[in-house]
Amino acid sequence: MHEPTPELFVDAVFSYQRTAAIQAAISLDLFTAICSGADGVKELAAQTKASPRGIRILCDYLTVQGFLEKTGERYRPTPSTQMFLDSRSPTYLGSVTEFMASPELIRVFLEDPASYVRRGGALGLSTLAPDHPIWVTFAKAMAPFVAPLAEAIAEEVGSWPTKPHKVLDIAAGHGAFGIAIGRKVAQAEIVAVDWDSVLTLARANAEAAGLSSRYRTIPGSAFDVDWGVGYDLILIPNFLHHFDFETCVRLLGKAKESLAENGKTLAVEFVPNEDRISPPMPASFAFVMLASTPSGDAYTAKELDTMARSAGYAGANVAALPTSPESLVSFDL
Amino acid sequence: MHEPTPELFVDAVFSYQRTAAIQAAISLDLFTAICSGADGVKELAAQTKASPRGIRILCDYLTVQGFLEKTGERYRPTPSTQMFLDSRSPTYLGSVTEFMASPELIRVFLEDPASYVRRGGALGLSTLAPDHPIWVTFAKAMAPFVAPLAEAIAEEVGSWPTKPHKVLDIAAGHGAFGIAIGRKVAQAEIVAVDWDSVLTLARANAEAAGLSSRYRTIPGSAFDVDWGVGYDLILIPNFLHHFDFETCVRLLGKAKESLAENGKTLAVEFVPNEDRISPPMPASFAFVMLASTPSGDAYTAKELDTMARSAGYAGANVAALPTSPESLVSFDL
Repeated sequence: MHEPTPELFVDAVFSYQRTAAIQAAISLDLFTAICSGADGVKELAAQTKASPRGIRILCDYLTVQGFLEKTGERYRPTPSTQMFLDSRSPTYLGSVTEFMASPELIRVFLEDPASYVRRGGALGLSTLAPDHPIWVTFAKAMAPFVAPLAEAIAEEVGSWPTKPHKVLDIAAGHGAFGIAIGRKVAQAEIVAVDWDSVLTLARANAEAAGLSSRYRTIPGSAFDVDWGVGYDLILIPNFLHHFDFETCVRLLGKAKESLAENGKTLAVEFVPNEDRISPPMPASFAFVMLASTPSGDAYTAKELDTMARSAGYAGANVAALPTSPESLVSFDL
Repeated sequence: MHEPTPELFVDAVFSYQRTAAIQAAISLDLFTAICSGADGVKELAAQTKASPRGIRILCDYLTVQGFLEKTGERYRPTPSTQMFLDSRSPTYLGSVTEFMASPELIRVFLEDPASYVRRGGALGLSTLAPDHPIWVTFAKAMAPFVAPLAEAIAEEVGSWPTKPHKVLDIAAGHGAFGIAIGRKVAQAEIVAVDWDSVLTLARANAEAAGLSSRYRTIPGSAFDVDWGVGYDLILIPNFLHHFDFETCVRLLGKAKESLAENGKTLAVEFVPNEDRISPPMPASFAFVMLASTPSGDAYTAKELDTMARSAGYAGANVAALPTSPESLVSFDL
């Protein structure tokens, strides 16, 4: 691209079409067909029960976008496509489209984009009741996305010389984070807090993991419920970014008061660099929060540290989570 | 990005957010504020009447996307942003969002993306009546996008040793192509064909260009109206891609029958390479047609040549239009 060119602009205006193409491919399970060896338009159309014309145009589009490679008339998947978009893969991520490209979320962004920039936030999905089915969709759909993160954190916690006995999982959702620790740390008791409808899912997942006897749930808002004290580990995964700085301080303060001696508080967050424009995903995440929450944000390491100090912690440490755009944030006493 | 990584996928799923951000920026005239020298969040918020928080997050997002550069807390536009997104620029393109990211077009793509791949096409906007206001929006919004193309083609036609006297502009829309030639070739009479509601716009543009006495309009479908014979030049700009091969042959055949001796037929088209995966914009355009027309496509040079021969021409020649993703297609007798 030689500047000046309108290409970047036209590409951005038409970007919603990229969402449409990936949704179509996931919905038709096209990547699985390609990963299983079908490589021509005719075969792929037969396997996905779609028209050859539709498949030809979609596959070419997905090749331009970098999901496939094309040689002659044959398509093949990239390594990333094989790992994340083949529905037979244990690391399959296709289901995240059910929330990340849900009509509800798309409407939040596209209905009136200037409005949330003007106001500096939006009600987003927060106007939906706690028992709205979208929250269960959210928890279910995002589970494969967070599973490797939950494993990485459980691995880390499992390596501590003193293992946690009592673990609080705030805004547990699917329950992945608490459950991963429950599986890794044999005696740990897990207490999960979230809306009641979502906790049904977390309980089912805990039961499937054989943790029923050590898994307890407390329905309600993390800001209001009494979750008790004496926690060796408090998890706050993907939660702080929904709120403004002061609200985060309030939640962290409440968490700190609930810790046992030498207890730890861990959060999972998108943490942009201090320039707020890198790396691309954590930096872009602030815009997701602008459009979909009243005052959420992607906090920098410095902000998280100030937040920690304001809540009575000694500070916050941010560590990369390999192969993830998210970071592990440790709030230290 | 080191493969395997889910980043490309997550980015694609969230791509509709890029559309939202660029729409917000255009709607707030943010780029114009930045191009006029405001470079800090506070100033920009004041000038765009938006919240500092919203502006900070949007500017960072637009920096990640490549529309701005950021140094410390200061933003500045790229050369492309200055040229195409500053509303004071004569080459401003912001208005194209009104059609290219209109709720109607977004719905066409996102309502059920698998459906048009399954069927190999969609009714798209074709279910809307010829007098639906979207067509006037379309014609108006896209005018700045095609203006430089129209100028380039008029330049080319103006350099011919024998200038055209009678010019037919099929699916004239805003009228830009015919009008540009009318301005360049002093005696040329221009006949524009399109839906009646859209021709109102073309006539207004022709009048503004001082061409009223040489500008005639014929309302109706290009496939049905009798536009007469004896044309030295027939223009078919951005029209063939809406139709299947056979329909294009039919239209080209009708055009050929209407030509004067040594008459020329010129089309403007997105022409992908024979691999159909390059260059990115023409190659991606087939997907736009898949989602938004029953059987439109982005035709390769080879297909256009076959199309030409089937319609009784000697063949088709494709030439790049500098600084444009589109090409000039000449159907030769």
